Amino acid sequence: ISVRFGSSKIDTDLINRIERATGQKPHRFLRRGIFFSHRDMDQILDAYENKKSFYLYTGRGPSSQAIHVGHLIPFIFTKWLQEVFDVPLVIQLTDDEKYLWKDLTTEKAYEYARENAKDIIACGFDINKTFIFSDLDYLGTSTGFYKNIVKVQKHVTFNQVKGIFGFTDSDCIGKISFPAIQAAPSFSSSFPQIFNGKENIQCLIPCAIDQDPYFRMTRDVAPRIGQPKPALLHSVFFPALQGAQTKMSASDPNSSIFLTDTPKQIKTKINKHAFSGGRDTIEEHRKYGGNCDVDVSFMYLTFFLEDDDRLEQLKQAYTSGELLTGELKKVLIETLQPLVAAHQERRKQVTDEMVKQFMTPRKLAFEF
Amino acid sequence: ISVRFGSSKIDTDLINRIERATGQKPHRFLRRGIFFSHRDMDQILDAYENKKSFYLYTGRGPSSQAIHVGHLIPFIFTKWLQEVFDVPLVIQLTDDEKYLWKDLTTEKAYEYARENAKDIIACGFDINKTFIFSDLDYLGTSTGFYKNIVKVQKHVTFNQVKGIFGFTDSDCIGKISFPAIQAAPSFSSSFPQIFNGKENIQCLIPCAIDQDPYFRMTRDVAPRIGQPKPALLHSVFFPALQGAQTKMSASDPNSSIFLTDTPKQIKTKINKHAFSGGRDTIEEHRKYGGNCDVDVSFMYLTFFLEDDDRLEQLKQAYTSGELLTGELKKVLIETLQPLVAAHQERRKQVTDEMVKQFMTPRKLAFEF
Repeated sequence: ISVRFGSSKIDTDLINRIERATGQKPHRFLRRGIFFSHRDMDQILDAYENKKSFYLYTGRGPSSQAIHVGHLIPFIFTKWLQEVFDVPLVIQLTDDEKYLWKDLTTEKAYEYARENAKDIIACGFDINKTFIFSDLDYLGTSTGFYKNIVKVQKHVTFNQVKGIFGFTDSDCIGKISFPAIQAAPSFSSSFPQIFNGKENIQCLIPCAIDQDPYFRMTRDVAPRIGQPKPALLHSVFFPALQGAQTKMSASDPNSSIFLTDTPKQIKTKINKHAFSGGRDTIEEHRKYGGNCDVDVSFMYLTFFLEDDDRLEQLKQAYTSGELLTGELKKVLIETLQPLVAAHQERRKQVTDEMVKQFMTPRKLAFEF
Repeated sequence: ISVRFGSSKIDTDLINRIERATGQKPHRFLRRGIFFSHRDMDQILDAYENKKSFYLYTGRGPSSQAIHVGHLIPFIFTKWLQEVFDVPLVIQLTDDEKYLWKDLTTEKAYEYARENAKDIIACGFDINKTFIFSDLDYLGTSTGFYKNIVKVQKHVTFNQVKGIFGFTDSDCIGKISFPAIQAAPSFSSSFPQIFNGKENIQCLIPCAIDQDPYFRMTRDVAPRIGQPKPALLHSVFFPALQGAQTKMSASDPNSSIFLTDTPKQIKTKINKHAFSGGRDTIEEHRKYGGNCDVDVSFMYLTFFLEDDDRLEQLKQAYTSGELLTGELKKVLIETLQPLVAAHQERRKQVTDEMVKQFMTPRKLAFEF
């Protein structure tokens, strides 16, 4: 099956190599070009094949409790990577970033971090292999994190962050120095409790492509502070219901399917708002067929429908005009309703005690 | 006695008020205008008279192990303040700053911090009332410090630090955000272990006048993050042996008397390098007298000779020409030799265990 999003392309060499190294069928996000570009994955796979360990690092900016299905993409993929490679995972919740950028108190930002942690935990991460941390909290409990932050901060100038992130002289100094805080978890010495104080354990970062500026900066700094460059796997942007060109907004409940939506809301939103690649009339649709490249329901199915054959059938049927938009939407509704309901069910099981455990700095089930 | 250094003037009202409030004779640094300007001291004294507590905050940038007698001035004065007012004291060692500004590793900067802590401890601070901390270390062990740092960082722009500290676009983002790290200990919530989590305990900062830009910035931010402005007491610059207009340099062993100097080194340095306000020949000196305003030996005596009457006698005798430069230098040598020797003796008694205790975040002997 070949699906492309925007500039994405499917990297067959990489996918084959991951399959060879792990003996596992590559995740649908790889098969379908949703994770579509990478840096230094060869190095990670070389290390893995030589029984050298690495670790995974991903994160989220906890700006609100409104998480949509697109926010799950990096976490779903990271969970698969963790299971396939059996490596430690650290998840950064940048509550300090949200405090700096939004009109929030530190307390509120931290509360969002904890609430977001529940959704992340509900993805099914192994508590013995996963450390979730809030910056506001972890910075004050780690002997290694701040040291790496200040090392990065010494090796990046204002000119550089101005160029990379577009900061201006009117920006607060917190924003200006923040990129170092997102960079530092790329170095294993930020987590002495997990890596037994070892530096130089290589890091692999699965993240959306918009986070690349942070990690290009990190990769630039790494050799200058004697650390390995983190490897990266990038995903495409997740499209808004209104179409791939529209900007998704957490404050617009109709811009996506949120993890708190009821089955009825899911149905209504998709039927009402999912941008269609179908034709104006049934007659035209039957005659000319629909356009999967712009149809949001089809795109969402590419993310969430596991069955390759079914997806291919849907594509052909829609393209040929045999399948109508309403019918395609019905498939998406029936895919997302149980997925979201199951997430809600798992999230309900996540107790404050579990959140506390996941967020406690501790040794994980790996020896270093 | 009236001694003035540069722009300093003796604030008789303040001195009288401190004397009234504490029932103690004001320290010679106050009597002689060495601590010469202040902000909000009235507020501190009002609070003290109303049995409301405050705390002291001072610090040092541990750029090297070479500490001279001038570096002791804020610590000698702070010790006096602590004894007279019986309040908690926090001492910041900005090893992160030194890492950012100098060609040092974080390890070396931290080592300097610990070595400098020994000299500070040797000043005689009460271990039950004093907390000494390295930024590199404490930032990762405090639940309150980073939160205050990020709050300050949100409320100060690059434009502001550019104006205050002269940063440019080529400066690293660590330098640009550092002022917030020196600001944060001005807020009691940076030390939850000492203040039982209480915010809003007022802070008094005794420091050299060159640190004022940091604290003007801090006082500007304080109300915007709901914190009291720190009060300040400023000291004059400590003059180099070569004269008040010369820049002191830790890398020039002849620029001052260092705490590691032997009695012989002290004697030689003063005789050879202390700028004299005396005349070219004995005859001229006897006739016209010496100039105490530029004589470094006399200035140093103003800092270190406790006896007011003796200092006044020396001044009159030197000014009249009765006392020769060599004789004045002899008085200074005989003042500093035992002072430095006693410091060395006390420093030898400071064990690693004591340093560890002073630098361990803990409750002090005060209830909040």
